Parts: sequence; C-alpha cells; structure tokens
Amino acid sequence: MSIDDKVRSIVKEFKAYVPGKSKEEIARNYGIDPERIIKLGSNENPWGCSPKIEEKLINEVSNLHQYPQPINPELMDEISKFTKIPVENIIVGGDGADEVIDNIMRILIDEGDEVIIPIPTFTQYAISAKIHGANIKWAKFDEENGFKLDVESVLNNITEKTKAIFLCTPNNPTGNVIPTEDIKKIVESTDALVMIDHAYIEYSKEEYDLTSWALKYDNVLILRTFSKVFGLAGQRVGYGVTSKKVVDYMMRIKPIFSLTRASQVSAITALLDKEFFEKCLKEGIESREEIYNGLKKFKQLEVYPTEANYMLVKVKNGMNSSEFCEALLKKGVIVRDCYSFEGLEPYYFRVSIGTSEENERFLKIMSEIVE
Amino acid sequence: MSIDDKVRSIVKEFKAYVPGKSKEEIARNYGIDPERIIKLGSNENPWGCSPKIEEKLINEVSNLHQYPQPINPELMDEISKFTKIPVENIIVGGDGADEVIDNIMRILIDEGDEVIIPIPTFTQYAISAKIHGANIKWAKFDEENGFKLDVESVLNNITEKTKAIFLCTPNNPTGNVIPTEDIKKIVESTDALVMIDHAYIEYSKEEYDLTSWALKYDNVLILRTFSKVFGLAGQRVGYGVTSKKVVDYMMRIKPIFSLTRASQVSAITALLDKEFFEKCLKEGIESREEIYNGLKKFKQLEVYPTEANYMLVKVKNGMNSSEFCEALLKKGVIVRDCYSFEGLEPYYFRVSIGTSEENERFLKIMSEIVE
Repeated sequence: MSIDDKVRSIVKEFKAYVPGKSKEEIARNYGIDPERIIKLGSNENPWGCSPKIEEKLINEVSNLHQYPQPINPELMDEISKFTKIPVENIIVGGDGADEVIDNIMRILIDEGDEVIIPIPTFTQYAISAKIHGANIKWAKFDEENGFKLDVESVLNNITEKTKAIFLCTPNNPTGNVIPTEDIKKIVESTDALVMIDHAYIEYSKEEYDLTSWALKYDNVLILRTFSKVFGLAGQRVGYGVTSKKVVDYMMRIKPIFSLTRASQVSAITALLDKEFFEKCLKEGIESREEIYNGLKKFKQLEVYPTEANYMLVKVKNGMNSSEFCEALLKKGVIVRDCYSFEGLEPYYFRVSIGTSEENERFLKIMSEIVE
Repeated sequence: MSIDDKVRSIVKEFKAYVPGKSKEEIARNYGIDPERIIKLGSNENPWGCSPKIEEKLINEVSNLHQYPQPINPELMDEISKFTKIPVENIIVGGDGADEVIDNIMRILIDEGDEVIIPIPTFTQYAISAKIHGANIKWAKFDEENGFKLDVESVLNNITEKTKAIFLCTPNNPTGNVIPTEDIKKIVESTDALVMIDHAYIEYSKEEYDLTSWALKYDNVLILRTFSKVFGLAGQRVGYGVTSKKVVDYMMRIKPIFSLTRASQVSAITALLDKEFFEKCLKEGIESREEIYNGLKKFKQLEVYPTEANYMLVKVKNGMNSSEFCEALLKKGVIVRDCYSFEGLEPYYFRVSIGTSEENERFLKIMSEIVE
C-alpha cells in the first residue's frame, strides 16, 4: 500500500496540465525581444484594464491583511445595474467563470450523472465535469455547416440522468452564436441546467444576449466574465446569473473567500468606468473587422465569421495547425493552436483581436507564411 | 420535475453560508464609529502587509488584462527559499489554504470514503470533505486535558476506507500544538494522507515546524498560508508542501488560473520583505503575551496557552459565548464566537492579537464585562 492506492482512479487517468508559454519563455526559446512579441492567443483585451483601477488598488493596500467580504454589496449592485438583473439572481466567482462552472458541477453531479457538451467548445466544461465524475455525452457544432449547433445532437442525448447542458454562445473557438430559438428549444425540453456561456456576449449583437432568461427559467444559468472586454483576466472575476433557487444551492457550497480584495476593487472600478468599456468595445469590434478582412485575402486560409473578440481560422497551405503556429511563434506571434479542442481536425487556429499596430504586424507576418 | 430534482441530495442538506459581519455592518447595527471598532476575530496580522507591496501592485496594473501564469517561477523560488523545500514539492493555491484543502479532497474522495477530523478544529476540513461525499469520523482534542490531541481517538478510527486525516497544529481555535511524536505515530500507522495544517506555525517554537516531513513521507501534506503573519488574508494565497507524487496528482486537477496576478505579486513581495516579516512576528508574539497576561487576571475567564496569533478563552461569568460576544460587539469589539466549532461547549470565544493600542482598549472593555 502507498499513497497511490488512496488516489481516485479518475485522477490517475487525468494528464498533468501543461501551461501555455509566456512571452518570456517564447522570447528565450526563439531569441526574440519580448517587447516585439504579439500575444493574440488568449482572447484578452489588448487595451488592458481601466486606468482608474490603479488608484483604487493603492487605496485597498491598507486592507489586504483582512479577509475579503464573501459578498461585496457594491460589486453586487454594480453588476446588477450592468446586467439589469436583481442582486439575488447573481453569484460571483473568485476564479473567473471557471469557479462558477465548477460550482455548478459541484451542486449537480453525483458519480455517473450525465452532462451534454457540443464540441468543439471551451475545454473547461469537460474538465470540470469529468473530475466530478460525470459521464460526458458529446453533441456537435457542425463543421460541415459553418459550425452551426446541431440541435438534434443535443436533444437526442437528453436522458433522465442529464444534469447539465453547456451552450457557449458566442462559441469558443468557432466565434458564431447559437440561434435563440435553438436554445429555447433545448431549455424547454429538459429540467437539466442549461449553462449559457456569455463570456464574449458584449462583442455580439444585442439580440443574442439572453441574460434576462435567468429570470424566466429556473434551469438556466448565464455565465459572464470580467476577463474579456473589461480587461481583467489576470484578476479572475466571473459571475453567474440564474434563478434564485440555483443561486441558493451554489451559495451553500461555493468557496467563501475566493474573490480577493484586489479583484473586488478592480471589478467595481471596471464597471464604473463606462467610457473605457465603450472605447474597448468599439475598438474591439473594429479590430475584429480589421483582422477578419485582412485574413480573408489569403486563399490558403478559411476564416469564420465571428461575434466575439477572436476568430477561428482553418489552415489550407499543407501545414497542420501545430506546424503553422510554430512558424508564427518563430516570428514572435502567439495565436491559439486549436489541436487541443475536442471535435476539431488539426488544421485550425484561433486569433484574438489586437491593437491596430499589432494587427498590422500580424497580417504582415501572415503574408510571409501563406498566400 | 424541476431543477430541484437535479440537485445532489448532499447539497440540499447543506445550510446556506452566513458570512460574518463586517466593520461597516457592526458600525451601522450598533451605532458605533467604524474607526473605533477593534477587529480581533479572524486571526489577521494587525500591522497589515508589507509596505513594499503598493509599488509592485502599481507596476502590475498594466498586466491585469492577461491571464495569470499558472505557475509563477519567481513565487515558487521564493517559497522554496523560505521553506527550504525544493520547488517540485510545493503547490500554490489561489483561494489560500482553502483551495489546497479542496484539491486534496478532490484527488482522494470517492463517495463513501472516510476522513478523520479531531475536533474542535478549523471548520473548513469538514465542509470540504462533506461536499466531496466523504464520511467523517470525528476524533478529539480532549477538553478535559487542555485540548491535547487524543491520539487513540484518531488511530482507532483508521480503516481501509480512510483517505485523509486532518491535524491542525497549532490547532485552531485551541492554540496548542500536537506533540511531534503523536503526529509521527499517526503518519506511520497509515497510508492515508495526513494533512498537517501549519497556518500559524510561524508563531510557534521552531521545533514544532514539521514542514521538512514532506520530503520524508509520501503521505504527508503541510499546509501553509500568506493569510497570517504575511498579512495577506485578502489576497488568498496558500500553499501545500508535500511529496512529488501528491503534487503531481494535485496539479492534474487544480484550478489552472486561480491565483490572480495581483496576488502573485503581493506574495512574492511579502516573502522578499524579511524586515517586515520579522517585525510582525516579534510584535505578534509580544501582543499575544500582552493579551494572555491581561486576560489571565480575570477570574471569570479561563485562558488557554497558545502557540498561534490567537487564544481560546472560556467564559465563566454565567453568560454563554453568544451573549458574551454580543456584549463585546456593543462596545465595538469583534472576537470569534466559537459556538460554530463542532466539539466545543457554547462558552468559548477566540481572540486574535492586536496592536498595543487595540489590546489596551480590548482589555479595558473586558474589565467592564467580567471580573
């Protein structure tokens, strides 16, 4: 006997996580000036976060020795104003949206329960579901059909054991939205929780924003985040908007103090700085058009329409995605190789919006690799 | 059918968490100037955090839009130097020690497995164990015997199903340490993971620091934190020191990005500011003596010896602990009412170290309530 015999078999099957490479590592490995590296791999906001955050962080330093408030009333109020949803329908997570995903699995999944995940999509759903002992039923975003959600592939997988269905819209990494009537059909056909991941919804047309459905259905949870247009990926703040029932269940088991004091202050300030938000959104959408139109010109690429701050690109120059991304890395450009997304052939990468200058350099470098 | 039918029965049994009252709330409820409130309830460092953190946080603002490094090499190196433990035996958690506790449960517990928890102790162990489906076997810190760990009560509970044993030393809330030979006996009698919670070890005599055992035993995990002497409870940074095997298993399932950028910078700076650390430790121990000796003078209190930054006190003036803590609240003093600690009669409170001025005011207020 040893400690190994005490570890869950499901953990033994998991592979150790290999973190992505930082700017510093790329610089070392490829002999590039780190200042010259363009990072378009993680769907971050290239204009950073609100400049007003600095002063608020300075003010908070004298409180950092105190445990955070488990529920920060000011943060709740500002999220409520931003989403037009009452405070009691909101739950904030301290590890971004990842914590909310994890808490949902934690309230729903007993060993052997089922979740439905259409793929390709955000990989965190499957990781969290598996570790909680769920059996995953794969549905699909149909590659043959511009990655439109195959609604039947979801509906056909619903059983009595289905506890949750994950719908990412706009979908990561494909960039397209799921039509509202398709989501409605799914939500109304089950009592399982339908998680609608709206991490990128700010970049989409308003009609695709289903946040208000949290007030209409008991079994809907809308996932939102500060990691994208608010420019706070490094501070890990996400939130769920859902029925009071689900908020109540989640509050019973969520980590109490997981949202740090510095993160609370950052998120409040981000919500109050409307001007910065509007600027990032406007310029973000312009940046998306810039890259989309630029990439469209290459015959050896297929670029997919997008409602998010990134787009999916298929490589058709004979290279697979890993070779292609490696070629870009050597020239100092980080994009997301999509080989690790279940349900995608190994010819896709995802590229995030950059500043105008970054986009220009990126497109120039692309022209050195593809026609 | 409804969403309720989809929720795990174990979650339905959980009570909603009721957060402790903030200074602001106490001020409102009791009509007290918030500046006059003395908070001695959460074992925080009354001297705050290193003053060098401010500048480092300002520098980090321009990076907050980027996801955090999952493993920060500088932070790992500094923890390694501080603990004299190789980097590969260290795992850092993004919700303080709570995340490490949760990850340990996550790698070990399948429904129906057992954990052993001697009580009274830190309540988070039982919460995390229960939510993962563990059966808890209670052992005891013996009230009749100055809360000395009853070693037999632990050993007698070990079965084939035992996955983990939680030993808090110095123990929260009792303040005493578990004798080294008792811990050795437990560790060597089982393959279950023995978690030795050293959140307060900096305040103890060096001989009680068992951190190096992580290199000697495969089944030991030492829990450490930045929330106490380092004054960073609000930034949520904790770490485990354990065998490479256990680090490897935990890395497979831990939340990838849970440690924020601001928290990483804060923790590194705290470790580098040796002077502030030494000052807080020295003054912390002096503060403890001050309160201990001050409280000892009251005949209606029993004060327990302590190796931590707090002490346990039994009320013997006819009030129960809730009445007593309420009386203190009215006078602007927050201490920890221990009624919620399993295994304690309702006559105990816990008081943390304060600044000299806070201690003086606290002792004066105590003299208005007890003899």
